[in-house]
Amino acid sequence: MNISALLTSAGINIGFSALFLSLYSILRKQPSNVYVYFGRRLEKENSRNEDPFTLERFVPSASWIVKAWEVTEDEILSIGGLDAVVFLRIFVFSIRIFSITAVVCVFGVLPVNYFGQAMQHGRISSESLDVFTIANVKGGSKWLWVHCTALYIITCSACSLLYSEYKNMSQMKLAHVTGSPPNPSHFTILVRAIPKSTEEYLTDTIRNFFTNYHGSSYLSHQIISRTGRFQKFMSNAKKVYKKFVRIRVTALDNKCRPNLYRCGLCGVVSNSFQFYHSDYNGKTTDLERSDTRRKRKECSSAFVFFKTRYAAVVASKVLQTSNPMQWVTGIAPEPCDVYWPNLWIPFGQLWIRRLATLLATIVFMFLFLIPVTFVQGLTQLDQLQQKLPFLNRIPNKAFVIQFVSGYLPSVILQLFLYSVPPMMMMFSTVEGSISRSGRKRSACCKILYFTIWNVFFVNVLSGSVISQLHIFSRPRDIPVHLAKAVPRQATFFITYVLTLGWASLSSEVLQTFSISYNWMRKYVFRWKEDPNAVPSFPYHTEVPKVLLFGLIGFTCSILAPLIVPFLLVYFFLGYLVYRNQILNVYSSYYESGGRMWPIVHNTTVFSLLLMQIIALGVFGTKDAPVASGFTIPLLIFTLLFSEYCRHHFNPIFKNFSAQDFIEMDREDEQTGRMKDIHLQLLTAYCPLTPPPTTAPEETYYDDSAAGDARNQVTI
Amino acid sequence: MNISALLTSAGINIGFSALFLSLYSILRKQPSNVYVYFGRRLEKENSRNEDPFTLERFVPSASWIVKAWEVTEDEILSIGGLDAVVFLRIFVFSIRIFSITAVVCVFGVLPVNYFGQAMQHGRISSESLDVFTIANVKGGSKWLWVHCTALYIITCSACSLLYSEYKNMSQMKLAHVTGSPPNPSHFTILVRAIPKSTEEYLTDTIRNFFTNYHGSSYLSHQIISRTGRFQKFMSNAKKVYKKFVRIRVTALDNKCRPNLYRCGLCGVVSNSFQFYHSDYNGKTTDLERSDTRRKRKECSSAFVFFKTRYAAVVASKVLQTSNPMQWVTGIAPEPCDVYWPNLWIPFGQLWIRRLATLLATIVFMFLFLIPVTFVQGLTQLDQLQQKLPFLNRIPNKAFVIQFVSGYLPSVILQLFLYSVPPMMMMFSTVEGSISRSGRKRSACCKILYFTIWNVFFVNVLSGSVISQLHIFSRPRDIPVHLAKAVPRQATFFITYVLTLGWASLSSEVLQTFSISYNWMRKYVFRWKEDPNAVPSFPYHTEVPKVLLFGLIGFTCSILAPLIVPFLLVYFFLGYLVYRNQILNVYSSYYESGGRMWPIVHNTTVFSLLLMQIIALGVFGTKDAPVASGFTIPLLIFTLLFSEYCRHHFNPIFKNFSAQDFIEMDREDEQTGRMKDIHLQLLTAYCPLTPPPTTAPEETYYDDSAAGDARNQVTI
Repeated sequence: MNISALLTSAGINIGFSALFLSLYSILRKQPSNVYVYFGRRLEKENSRNEDPFTLERFVPSASWIVKAWEVTEDEILSIGGLDAVVFLRIFVFSIRIFSITAVVCVFGVLPVNYFGQAMQHGRISSESLDVFTIANVKGGSKWLWVHCTALYIITCSACSLLYSEYKNMSQMKLAHVTGSPPNPSHFTILVRAIPKSTEEYLTDTIRNFFTNYHGSSYLSHQIISRTGRFQKFMSNAKKVYKKFVRIRVTALDNKCRPNLYRCGLCGVVSNSFQFYHSDYNGKTTDLERSDTRRKRKECSSAFVFFKTRYAAVVASKVLQTSNPMQWVTGIAPEPCDVYWPNLWIPFGQLWIRRLATLLATIVFMFLFLIPVTFVQGLTQLDQLQQKLPFLNRIPNKAFVIQFVSGYLPSVILQLFLYSVPPMMMMFSTVEGSISRSGRKRSACCKILYFTIWNVFFVNVLSGSVISQLHIFSRPRDIPVHLAKAVPRQATFFITYVLTLGWASLSSEVLQTFSISYNWMRKYVFRWKEDPNAVPSFPYHTEVPKVLLFGLIGFTCSILAPLIVPFLLVYFFLGYLVYRNQILNVYSSYYESGGRMWPIVHNTTVFSLLLMQIIALGVFGTKDAPVASGFTIPLLIFTLLFSEYCRHHFNPIFKNFSAQDFIEMDREDEQTGRMKDIHLQLLTAYCPLTPPPTTAPEETYYDDSAAGDARNQVTI
Repeated sequence: MNISALLTSAGINIGFSALFLSLYSILRKQPSNVYVYFGRRLEKENSRNEDPFTLERFVPSASWIVKAWEVTEDEILSIGGLDAVVFLRIFVFSIRIFSITAVVCVFGVLPVNYFGQAMQHGRISSESLDVFTIANVKGGSKWLWVHCTALYIITCSACSLLYSEYKNMSQMKLAHVTGSPPNPSHFTILVRAIPKSTEEYLTDTIRNFFTNYHGSSYLSHQIISRTGRFQKFMSNAKKVYKKFVRIRVTALDNKCRPNLYRCGLCGVVSNSFQFYHSDYNGKTTDLERSDTRRKRKECSSAFVFFKTRYAAVVASKVLQTSNPMQWVTGIAPEPCDVYWPNLWIPFGQLWIRRLATLLATIVFMFLFLIPVTFVQGLTQLDQLQQKLPFLNRIPNKAFVIQFVSGYLPSVILQLFLYSVPPMMMMFSTVEGSISRSGRKRSACCKILYFTIWNVFFVNVLSGSVISQLHIFSRPRDIPVHLAKAVPRQATFFITYVLTLGWASLSSEVLQTFSISYNWMRKYVFRWKEDPNAVPSFPYHTEVPKVLLFGLIGFTCSILAPLIVPFLLVYFFLGYLVYRNQILNVYSSYYESGGRMWPIVHNTTVFSLLLMQIIALGVFGTKDAPVASGFTIPLLIFTLLFSEYCRHHFNPIFKNFSAQDFIEMDREDEQTGRMKDIHLQLLTAYCPLTPPPTTAPEETYYDDSAAGDARNQVTI
């Protein structure tokens, strides 16, 4: 590939992107697509302006870009929550560091690579791309110092930027905890593995235990139970209800919608699905109890509510009894974040489930090499024809061959890749995460490892992948192998950024899948739109994608600096596109409170380390022992930096501090809000409420259901 | 080596051991050695029976064995603490598992190995030892099933024994916590990284913080500070005092000895070294304060005392402020267990110190290969002579050669090995452990890794060790390499057990070093005995030794079953010897509360895994794929078992449970003891008291020093 070919490819991709974005700017103005492109805003603002038919609707415009650009971070925080801010900070960080990298590499490294060998340079446009990579630098050249200096500049600026981001992020997280309205999850712990006794009812066991050992702060509890058939009936009833009574009317006057709907099927008010109530101090009769026991299979888990936040934190942190596998406590997830089906999993199973999913993920990652090698086989059709002779009998051979070898492989690979997120999400579900955000975070990590392995490493070791696997059994040779392979694959990565990077953004903004599905629903099946079907932001697929581009950027920056400008365009565009999507499309039902950032930080540090290891290999193969020697302190520095950040910031994302919680408790007590909070707390955790379409706080406060303590609910 | 040679060697070693033990039984009866052999008892019981000169004193007897055998576990617990029990349980476990292994291997595996090849067997006594190893079994033999079955039996019985031991041990640990008299460490937390302010005194900062956030349970605090010159003067004064006033008189009426001695040098009572007192509620004047500040460099750490145990646990577990590097809390070590010099280390340094010592330990482990290769070079004297020609000029060449090649290598190696424990102890000190037991435990782990690496692996890969290191860079080939090397080294390990194992026990019981030192003191330097110089049990050197023999036993059991009977003898003898030593010789100043057991458990599991991996390699080289296939589930089972135990028992050794502590608090409150405990608490942590010669509880209760709250002490 030469420069002109690259520019042509870039031009085509820019053209396509521009086309898609204009198409988006037109499509978004069509009233029929409003549920696709403005799902979150519709749900939130409950207003549709039925535009009159004007010509303006069919003229592309850039107004959405301006709107996306103008929104402040505070607005994003209030609209999309801390997770959205964290996600956008990845782009901000990437833009900053790759701007520095671009300056360093384009003005420092690129000329050194280009003039690396005493050769006659032709016209730049017909120059091969390899001339711009480090492969063009002579072995033993003195100019490798430039690469080493660039390595230092990039690492140091990346570390200082990472540090300031982590600091910023942890302050934001703290402000989020202390600044947000009272959160029921702060008062609640989830107790698992409660020992069952034959003499006592579970609810009595729990009450006795907590009044005995946490008497001054214990408020109430809520057992998690499930009744096999009752549960099925309930979910079926909900489905039927949804089918017959279109929720649209309800949705439009969303603010005054009660939690218990009028059921369209049978005509009665749906609070005929009554919860089983029992007061905190109330003694229910034995008759009622036996009745309850007969009907309901109790799970050995419960939510326990405390009078103060601090008491809940204390109860969640301290080992309760001398048997570490009983009365296991932990801070409960937010009500809308609870993943109810997994609360049923016995605590004793969790460790084995975690091991099993870890194993399954690794097996899946390696099994994925099979379709990859199959696809790679398709590109070498000659060999395939020998093995499958029936291919020769196909008429119009030339076209089929072109199709099979040129187009089919990437389609098959993409189809296989589409199977990865649901698969990883399934693994994370089986793993037993009790919160939706935890499940998503776990899936995010799995997809991240998968992507880095299957896109970066497998492509770098391209050719017959499996035959190259043996290099991982000789750790010492890895840097040299990578140093040889990465510059060779630089062209591939540039086109990867151009096509897959830019294309994925266009597809994201156009919502290709969503809009096709919407049209199918509307014009083929003649269904009406469901305003409640607003998707939540797919962090688990988007974060790994963005981080992968960061990884490619770091590892290629010094070896093949031409990639950096293209990456910068990707990050700029991505920043605008995702701001727009967070503002208009996705809803934030639940959030992890910025716990995605440590993953981002660690991946970036890994990328830096990988960059340094590859540089070490390159300096080794180019006979520059001094440059190698100078890279090792950088490696150690990066490792120390990572350790430092882990100690200084990580605990903030995992724990709540006593000081903050005690201050918050005091403030609430002084303002007299505590009583209200306690009342609302008792009804906060209810698995039957539909997925909140309003922000969590609002659901919590507007909840007008029975105000008395509810000790048992069914899921 | 053949059987008769082995038996001869065993006979010689048995003879030597018998000789040493008889020598011990005589020497222990001599009054002059009473401080060497009965240090603990003398210190404890304060009585010397001056035996008359009788012939009986010079007749060897086995009475000490009977006494050591008859002591019950409860007595050991009361004398040596939980750590001593844990240490002896290693022997009990080893005896049990190796008895099973002996039965299985001697009656199952040994005949199969012996008749493994169709060959004419000569007289057993002249048979080579190799005939008894797995090397004698034909490749592809059906009889390898016997080995596989033996592997299953050994693993399963080891796991079930380990499980019952761990369970037993954790119950013992719980009983130890709940059953022991009030322990000041349970009420105390160590706060580190207290932020210094220019406006406030440190003691006010601490008081304000804890009265603000833990007001209901905060009792008092004690700042840790050090005054450079004052400190030196104090320690010099102590030395002088010890030199001039022989403590012997005091030691004999130990029970009524006050904590503050009369100083022999200047004639005044030594409480002229006054502590700086400040009441809990007392407001010291500004004048006094500035005075204090001028004299004393305050450290940003403090002990904080709470009114209940539960409050202390809570404060130690919860993140105090939103800055995880400030107000860092943790349960304090017991007063006699505190390692005062390390309290001075700033908390922010700890993580980097830990990393540095880890690195230093690894470097040391590999640097140790240099003396090993040097020693291995000495055995090949021909090569040495070529390189160092002056050796040829030495007269009486034959003797020198024999000496140099036969005796010197092991002496040099032993001398180098003696340097390991102090080195590792130094690393653990630098690491920053705040308790003596923690430092010892950390050193124990380091010595364990060192021993396993340098005795097991380096010997297995014998010959030119460094040239074989490359096999570790190819992990997949390790099992095969080990499978080839371990049977080859089986003879070495048998002699290792015979000589070093048995010899180390004899040397331990004779206290070779201690008795020589004692004689030197007494007859050369004419010093008097120091009854306070009773050594504490060197767990950090003894635990790795015993565990190493376990590792050798497991890995060799199937490959060379002849080793097992010798090991059994070692464990039996060791059990008796160490019981005797714990009863008579060593004192237990401080203890870790059985926290050594998880190390023992993990090392044993590692040994089992290593045994299986080696078996996997053996079955691979012997063409028994089915047996290999059956070994893999065993490996997975062992890993799962280890995970299971980690989840079920490990937290008990690391945490205190709320239930237990609340019950204990209640009991103390009901019996009215709490007030006394609080009073005693305030004077419990004092760095100036001499190392406790009585059990920690007694020191604590008999402490007759000023009863008022002491907020500052110097170290």
